[in-house]
Amino acid sequence: MTASSATAIPGIDLNSDLGEGFGRWSLGDDDRMLAVVSSANVACGFHAGDPATMRRTVCGAVARGVTIGAHVAYRDLAGFGRRTMDVPSDELRADIVYQLGALQAVAAAEGTRVRYVKPHGALYNTAATDARVAEDVAAAVAAVDPTLVVLGLPGSVALDAAADAGLATAAEAFADRAYTTAGTLVPRGEPGAVLDDAQVVADRVLRLVTSGLVTAVDGTDVAVHADSVCVHGDTPGAVAMAERVRSVLADAGVRLRPFVGDA
Amino acid sequence: MTASSATAIPGIDLNSDLGEGFGRWSLGDDDRMLAVVSSANVACGFHAGDPATMRRTVCGAVARGVTIGAHVAYRDLAGFGRRTMDVPSDELRADIVYQLGALQAVAAAEGTRVRYVKPHGALYNTAATDARVAEDVAAAVAAVDPTLVVLGLPGSVALDAAADAGLATAAEAFADRAYTTAGTLVPRGEPGAVLDDAQVVADRVLRLVTSGLVTAVDGTDVAVHADSVCVHGDTPGAVAMAERVRSVLADAGVRLRPFVGDA
Amino acid sequence: MTASSATAIPGIDLNSDLGEGFGRWSLGDDDRMLAVVSSANVACGFHAGDPATMRRTVCGAVARGVTIGAHVAYRDLAGFGRRTMDVPSDELRADIVYQLGALQAVAAAEGTRVRYVKPHGALYNTAATDARVAEDVAAAVAAVDPTLVVLGLPGSVALDAAADAGLATAAEAFADRAYTTAGTLVPRGEPGAVLDDAQVVADRVLRLVTSGLVTAVDGTDVAVHADSVCVHGDTPGAVAMAERVRSVLADAGVRLRPFVGDA
Amino acid sequence: MTASSATAIPGIDLNSDLGEGFGRWSLGDDDRMLAVVSSANVACGFHAGDPATMRRTVCGAVARGVTIGAHVAYRDLAGFGRRTMDVPSDELRADIVYQLGALQAVAAAEGTRVRYVKPHGALYNTAATDARVAEDVAAAVAAVDPTLVVLGLPGSVALDAAADAGLATAAEAFADRAYTTAGTLVPRGEPGAVLDDAQVVADRVLRLVTSGLVTAVDGTDVAVHADSVCVHGDTPGAVAMAERVRSVLADAGVRLRPFVGDA
Repeated sequence: MTASSATAIPGIDLNSDLGEGFGRWSLGDDDRMLAVVSSANVACGFHAGDPATMRRTVCGAVARGVTIGAHVAYRDLAGFGRRTMDVPSDELRADIVYQLGALQAVAAAEGTRVRYVKPHGALYNTAATDARVAEDVAAAVAAVDPTLVVLGLPGSVALDAAADAGLATAAEAFADRAYTTAGTLVPRGEPGAVLDDAQVVADRVLRLVTSGLVTAVDGTDVAVHADSVCVHGDTPGAVAMAERVRSVLADAGVRLRPFVGDA
Repeated sequence: MTASSATAIPGIDLNSDLGEGFGRWSLGDDDRMLAVVSSANVACGFHAGDPATMRRTVCGAVARGVTIGAHVAYRDLAGFGRRTMDVPSDELRADIVYQLGALQAVAAAEGTRVRYVKPHGALYNTAATDARVAEDVAAAVAAVDPTLVVLGLPGSVALDAAADAGLATAAEAFADRAYTTAGTLVPRGEPGAVLDDAQVVADRVLRLVTSGLVTAVDGTDVAVHADSVCVHGDTPGAVAMAERVRSVLADAGVRLRPFVGDA
Repeated sequence: MTASSATAIPGIDLNSDLGEGFGRWSLGDDDRMLAVVSSANVACGFHAGDPATMRRTVCGAVARGVTIGAHVAYRDLAGFGRRTMDVPSDELRADIVYQLGALQAVAAAEGTRVRYVKPHGALYNTAATDARVAEDVAAAVAAVDPTLVVLGLPGSVALDAAADAGLATAAEAFADRAYTTAGTLVPRGEPGAVLDDAQVVADRVLRLVTSGLVTAVDGTDVAVHADSVCVHGDTPGAVAMAERVRSVLADAGVRLRPFVGDA
Repeated sequence: MTASSATAIPGIDLNSDLGEGFGRWSLGDDDRMLAVVSSANVACGFHAGDPATMRRTVCGAVARGVTIGAHVAYRDLAGFGRRTMDVPSDELRADIVYQLGALQAVAAAEGTRVRYVKPHGALYNTAATDARVAEDVAAAVAAVDPTLVVLGLPGSVALDAAADAGLATAAEAFADRAYTTAGTLVPRGEPGAVLDDAQVVADRVLRLVTSGLVTAVDGTDVAVHADSVCVHGDTPGAVAMAERVRSVLADAGVRLRPFVGDA
């Protein structure tokens, strides 16, 4: 996070996508993941997350003391927000305002509030490289609440645009992804892009948190800045990996703390 | 409105359903209607009103000084929210919180805020007589913002439930509808239920505002309490009728004022 | 089925709801259930079942030699078609024609065809007792293809209306439901309405198939006519129960056969 | 159309997008346009066209003797199918099969059938240049009914892919669009891309039909092949222009005839 200060005791945030069911359908094990993470990216109804599911997710986060973020997306339930769409700025901005406000009211009704925004899926990927889309996201967030933090890829135009709009930003690393020597993610589809050994993943996260270093695909060390580490919970194996990450961090004395400071 | 006080200069609110387009589709003439009414019931995306349309409607209301209300509905785009649905309480409450929050954020992004809630279509009708649904609406509104006012049919369980939940309420009359001797609406489908002569309608509204009386279907006078009068704008004829109502009121020195007082 | 003839070797159809995922979300274990049933009620997109899921379900049915039926529903993805909706006849009929045609084309593209129609959820329940809705379903099916069979509750107005429209009908029993002495289902919510012991359920189905009798809740025998027996697959326990039913029938020499005869 | 033969009496097809309302919303004047065109591109529910609207459109076409085509689109009601989406092949093919089948059943229920397919909006544009998408459209159409004709831009990969899939194709010109000297459309947004003088447009269509020539933007003549001419009906001015085109053709003795020959 741009304004984070150094602390003696190392700490880190773990974030995960939660509340990604819709109506009759559920996805992943939100209960177990709420015991792992410190920040919950809550689906807002456009790629997943009907209102009643949103409410249950927010209630679970409140009960666990987990910070709530809005996981905003393209309007694409059938494609789970993973299909790139060419949405004009006025529509995209309004779509983000709408989703954000919907979650804010769900949170308010449960006595809490939304603290950050993370774009989902295709919107996350597009906002990471497309300045116009990044500006749309930033402008929508800033218009609703300028104290919201935007969570995204370090060095992405999404974070640049957010900072330009006067928003605080937070950079995230991905627990189960390999990194290039440039400190960027190895693209999905390339060999070794996704790591599947829970212990290896947990050890990498611990090293990242304590030293700021990750072993890149060529074996060299690369510096990666992260205010938060993203873990997944959409399969039983993913949940177990996230739990391993948490326990390895705990055993090493790393404190889990939301990347958004208390107001 | 429950707490309204008598004033020397007669005043009344005119409300209308606005922003009822969706994407490529528009409905009615919002520009002309925003010049007529003092309160706009803005569709929130479940029966009509995509986010970009909501934003345009809110911008228009801001430009005209028109008060903004959330026109919440069943999730039924194909049926325009007019089909009765048996929605469990937890889903209905969450649906209302969601829609209300979405409009709140759209309003906040334009520097204004939502002041009242009016259920739409089948939800309006059901909440008028079904205590469980009325309580769901009231509870959802109160959970989001207890300063919101609920607009509905005088004597309806919708207003009773809102009052029980600690919310202010406002009663509306319908400009173009006939009344029984009991002061209730003549059901649609019965002869003479809907009036179509703009001058007759305007004169009735003026009498209602200045005397609190309406001529019932049998020719006798009946007392009708109204904090607001609902006018329609979904056809060219309806817009012209609404304009006539406004001009007859203006000519008689009746001041148009939102039923929600400034905070 | 109205025109079914007696046979020396007992046979029965097993049907189940399949293809009830949507986009990213899945429900139940269709692969295992396709190995159990002889007829698949395939969701058509209104309560579940996006087009790609429909195609996968149809392909699986073709590979297993399972007969395909259209599981038509109210347009209610968020409520999984389980919420009663008051849909006017012209809309309901068109909705059913639409869903049926969509599945017919998916089937045609895979070299097979739809043989029957079973209403889903709230539409099933409403069509069982509401003559207008039952007539809408029957009229829609007959208009698209008068050789389609309507599957429903024995003695229901859904089957009466289908027969009146010139359609063949088939009656189904429910493997895991208790029956009254009148041969009707014990309403959900009453004690003992749903059976959960797989062996008990399988034995009851066998007795029903071989003798036409079921033990009612009061311990007496009641005659139940069934051309098909509905089994569920939406939980691991349900799948195991369905597999038990099939194996008990097989061990007893009962032949599984679709209730729709080959043309 | 690839197999069209020369005739002594000149004839042409006029096609238009119809049935583009959804639920409460209508678009354009379908009744007047059905008196103008010989082929109706009927929306199938993904960008517009709920089932009841589809039925009304098909009934109107039957009453007027207008040929019915399926106007298939991306699943994007909020964007009216005009936003480019990156839809994987298996999903896109299934989406097209689904829409096509839905309209086939609506047509069958009214005693007629679908004769051709025209992609809509962003899908039309993408299929015109993107071979993968063009192949998806062609494969979906061929899988459902290989006698269907694909209507598209002359020289587009959409028509190439359709021909490769064994389908008949038909090329369309646009009545109100300017052409380059290469015989392609002047891109929207460039000066003079869209013509708005009804008489000029009608005279150009007549010349195209009788001589195969269009005056390009630089004043030279360019040959344009068209089996059908697309006219619009989404504004009162567009309807009047379409009517002018029809009357100018009629006065010149040009016979209106569907581009799909009777089977």
